[in-house]
Amino acid sequence: MKSLRPSLLCLPSIASTHIPFQSSYHSSLLRMASEPPFSSRNSSSSSNDTTENSSVLASASSAIDFLTLCHRLKTTKRAGWVKREIENPESIADHMYRMGLMALIAPEIPGVDRDKCIKMAIVHDIAEAIVGDITPFDGVPKLEKSRREREAINRMCNLLGGGPRANEISELWMEYEENASLEAKFVKDCDKVEMILQALEYENGQGKDLDDFFQSTAGKFQTQLGSAWAAEIASRRKNK
Amino acid sequence: MKSLRPSLLCLPSIASTHIPFQSSYHSSLLRMASEPPFSSRNSSSSSNDTTENSSVLASASSAIDFLTLCHRLKTTKRAGWVKREIENPESIADHMYRMGLMALIAPEIPGVDRDKCIKMAIVHDIAEAIVGDITPFDGVPKLEKSRREREAINRMCNLLGGGPRANEISELWMEYEENASLEAKFVKDCDKVEMILQALEYENGQGKDLDDFFQSTAGKFQTQLGSAWAAEIASRRKNK
Repeated sequence: MKSLRPSLLCLPSIASTHIPFQSSYHSSLLRMASEPPFSSRNSSSSSNDTTENSSVLASASSAIDFLTLCHRLKTTKRAGWVKREIENPESIADHMYRMGLMALIAPEIPGVDRDKCIKMAIVHDIAEAIVGDITPFDGVPKLEKSRREREAINRMCNLLGGGPRANEISELWMEYEENASLEAKFVKDCDKVEMILQALEYENGQGKDLDDFFQSTAGKFQTQLGSAWAAEIASRRKNK
Repeated sequence: MKSLRPSLLCLPSIASTHIPFQSSYHSSLLRMASEPPFSSRNSSSSSNDTTENSSVLASASSAIDFLTLCHRLKTTKRAGWVKREIENPESIADHMYRMGLMALIAPEIPGVDRDKCIKMAIVHDIAEAIVGDITPFDGVPKLEKSRREREAINRMCNLLGGGPRANEISELWMEYEENASLEAKFVKDCDKVEMILQALEYENGQGKDLDDFFQSTAGKFQTQLGSAWAAEIASRRKNK
């Protein structure tokens, strides 16, 4: 096991202008667990500690509220597969997970922040924890779908208590929704590539004909990398 | 929709010392799709293009091979829940997905690279695509489990064709496995927090008693943030 520099084992607090309690939140939460826990500190600092502990608990509570809501991303099956009566269809989380891997293994692209692509991949469908997986066949106009999802994102960000992380999630989602950056264009390609790869896997594993998923995405890739991955999948499908 | 600077719409090639074909790989794959596709370029450059296209296809093939293998992370249910006869248990990918979100919403930690934590979260169980989810109750010694997983990581990295992305995956996995950085310590805490939150959700949703998951993790958190999240979950369980 590699050794850690001792100086890294005790993390100092950091300042933030976003959440009033964030400074004490950080000073408490980011110590290593080998330091005295909140409940066993010297009673002489009880007044400060009481405020600090309340802030810590409130922030942990917000985080767990948010993560509990995101549980639905694991339990909600992707609607496109449910409609096609796929057995044991993947969850929304499964789909976003492999998109995260796609961004992870993507080659370096000048002007593109790969880490941002990974975050965008795991955020882009997060509103579905509230609104579900609305497909083009559900009769919901595109603008109305976007409005519902925007509202859901706001609710989720409020659940987090606002602050820089909530802002980041909101911005990542909006940038993707608006196709407003190279990262968004690449992640949108990943969304389609992941779907057709999954379609091919269901065709191979469950004897289905899922040609419409290939037809609906053909010619719609915005990057050469997305196009090349899609072409590879289409080639395997043709040769199976 | 936000506008993109025209200069960003055409991506130049970049050099790499890791994969012999990477320069041409990049120059081809990272153009935006509005540029001429490989098959429709001027025939006067056919010799270079032939080499380039072969490289592109080989690389796309490696990426799709890797992603196809990772499909098993979606279809393999977490063994701890299967053993406890949980209905529709989460997949390995589901678990890693929410861990990725945990790292995403974590506050800024001096000396800790949050983006690296997100990547480590989505990589840390990736070897299970080959070896499956080996639990402490399977009778496999810890060293043997680690050896099998290390071998699986090597196979997956070879599938990717080596290079910087394969190295990154291997390093992230090893750092986590060896608990060798603050990022690893935090992500290990996320692993436990995600598990007990999921345990609580199964207890609430399926009327199970999953106390052993709480007992086995109690007191084992390495960061104050992990401890605070775990305490919040334990508090909710106590008060339900």
